[in-house]
Amino acid sequence: MQAVRIAGAGSTAFGASPERTGRDLFGEAARIAIDDSGVPRAAIDRLCYGNFVGTVTERQGHQAPLMAKAAGVTAPATRYESACASGGVALKSAVEAVRSGAADVVLVGGMERMHNVTTERATEGLAMAADHLYESRAGVTFPGAYALMARAYFEEFGGTRADLAAVAVKNHRNALGNDKAQFQTEISTSDVLEAPTVADPLGLYDACPITDGASACVLVSEAYAEENNLDAPIAVTGAGQGTDSLALQQRDSLTRTPATTTAATAAYDEAEIAPSDIDLLEVHDCFTIAEVLALEGLGVYDRGAAIDAARSGETTRDGDLPVNLSGGLKAKGHPVGATGVSQVVELTKLLRGDHVNSAAVPDASLAVAHNAGGTVASATVHVLEVRS
Amino acid sequence: MQAVRIAGAGSTAFGASPERTGRDLFGEAARIAIDDSGVPRAAIDRLCYGNFVGTVTERQGHQAPLMAKAAGVTAPATRYESACASGGVALKSAVEAVRSGAADVVLVGGMERMHNVTTERATEGLAMAADHLYESRAGVTFPGAYALMARAYFEEFGGTRADLAAVAVKNHRNALGNDKAQFQTEISTSDVLEAPTVADPLGLYDACPITDGASACVLVSEAYAEENNLDAPIAVTGAGQGTDSLALQQRDSLTRTPATTTAATAAYDEAEIAPSDIDLLEVHDCFTIAEVLALEGLGVYDRGAAIDAARSGETTRDGDLPVNLSGGLKAKGHPVGATGVSQVVELTKLLRGDHVNSAAVPDASLAVAHNAGGTVASATVHVLEVRS
Repeated sequence: MQAVRIAGAGSTAFGASPERTGRDLFGEAARIAIDDSGVPRAAIDRLCYGNFVGTVTERQGHQAPLMAKAAGVTAPATRYESACASGGVALKSAVEAVRSGAADVVLVGGMERMHNVTTERATEGLAMAADHLYESRAGVTFPGAYALMARAYFEEFGGTRADLAAVAVKNHRNALGNDKAQFQTEISTSDVLEAPTVADPLGLYDACPITDGASACVLVSEAYAEENNLDAPIAVTGAGQGTDSLALQQRDSLTRTPATTTAATAAYDEAEIAPSDIDLLEVHDCFTIAEVLALEGLGVYDRGAAIDAARSGETTRDGDLPVNLSGGLKAKGHPVGATGVSQVVELTKLLRGDHVNSAAVPDASLAVAHNAGGTVASATVHVLEVRS
Repeated sequence: MQAVRIAGAGSTAFGASPERTGRDLFGEAARIAIDDSGVPRAAIDRLCYGNFVGTVTERQGHQAPLMAKAAGVTAPATRYESACASGGVALKSAVEAVRSGAADVVLVGGMERMHNVTTERATEGLAMAADHLYESRAGVTFPGAYALMARAYFEEFGGTRADLAAVAVKNHRNALGNDKAQFQTEISTSDVLEAPTVADPLGLYDACPITDGASACVLVSEAYAEENNLDAPIAVTGAGQGTDSLALQQRDSLTRTPATTTAATAAYDEAEIAPSDIDLLEVHDCFTIAEVLALEGLGVYDRGAAIDAARSGETTRDGDLPVNLSGGLKAKGHPVGATGVSQVVELTKLLRGDHVNSAAVPDASLAVAHNAGGTVASATVHVLEVRS
């Protein structure tokens, strides 16, 4: 099995770019990642690409050939779709391709463009990540679904809106100075608590925004990196994926995310690590409650214990276990198909020391990325480690 | 590298099933394939699933978890989308997973449901396989795009509508008695030539139909098959994929399909075969001209030489090189996301001797499946061989 290195990583600015096409966005992210890697385009053996609702927002399916062209790549290109985990599943496939020797160099990335359509249309698209027959058709949108999960969590373990607000406040603070982030502004707990309710108990600031953007990484085998003298100090040492029932009603519990746990267990086993070895994480905080559930599903907090992590300071920039130093989906933004790759772009920079928040984790050597789709019917977990 | 065997294969009936949901269709195909394999569901390590326009026709993205549930599988599930080659790319990924040892058993399949929406809406969805900015937005639908290719072919190499009609007549004849096929009826050359023109020079019978249906295969490693005494005589010995510019206007030629050639070259190299070794093929005949272009792209005919293959009888049921013995997309039907897998289901049966047309190829030991997306911006080629 080939060891996998990240040779290059890059993202567009995240935010509202209604005038930029998807191919334009992805082309930029790919160019940044490829330039960062020092790998010639002709060496790229395949493109693994994540996108969720391009058929809804750009009337464009079959995006992989389009994005290969935009990236200047002629190798075989495949689109992966697993709702908000589309980037994560593309990444897992890219890791497997390098590991198995099927490819020496893989360009992996994702893109989403949603600000060119109305908010209603974007919401309609996002709702397609839920079970149409049993959820979205009945009017359950994602704020509603995560509100059910938050309410169940509060009932089972306690917790308040103020506890969740600390997640939003933390992630906005982390995004300060992250020049790719959609919101580089601080918010206060009272901003969160006084914001309009979206789906009780979740308010406007408990939710991540709608985001246009793209991210890409160049993965190479360790052998390729050595032969070509690439500066690629970050290794992907674990990759896991989990799948759960799509509809919430088919789950045993609204406060467990077994797909996350399945993915984490597989990734940790591969990397031969325990949750206690993790120095920092990027987790899928599409809503504040999602960060809480992710940290518990990942085994870094016991069930019922992660609700207070942000408020107690443990997961803040200066805490023992910084979470979402990029700003997370909440403040960095959530260009759906790109998010799973974007997390790895941010962690690569954080671990290499070229991120605005690298100073907060000077000795970090092991990071975990967690990407989820829908109400965590899909999840991927990747372990990144610094290697000499 | 693990050798890959097909342990089970199955499809739903293809046709119009507007009352059946996508999950219902896929659940049936998966059940047939799993039952055929003798593999317990708990042994399945992953689901690779192809679907194209579920967001348009069922307002359902994120289908992989849904289809895993429908198949009774709890393993990680991923959706692949490459337009009409979605099934093929899912299959290639499944083959790679078994080869690399990442999985011992993979359920691979695909599904499309389109008869539950209007023909206009289905056409709108299918058009999303083309470049929206440069093709579909300008009014180019797939009959129009393939008509351009047919006209260019006629100008470059000669050929007539009657030559193409022979492809449709052949494929309809092949579908007689194939109990899964959408059209189990013969047509005559004059039926084809007198049918309404869809996009000159292509008429109604030059085009494949809109189809609801699902297909699935169970792939296993040779070691798993041996250890579990599975009857799995068909091996996948080659798998290739190619990508081209999405828009026709960006191609050097309208009569070449380089993505097919790239995929074929890779698959033949892996299998260590030459085109002359092939006993029968299933190729992507979404239009009659597409079968001609496929046979040339695959290297089984020289450029300009495949136009007469069906009329001269070479590719008919009783010819030297039977093509689309299933009936092809033309008569068996084209449930888009399932098609690439459906071709392998049909070839598996043909090679095992349990297909209505097996009698036509009693000594066949090597078959090729060719799946294409859009105007062949994506293509996959798989080589199947009979093993003891």
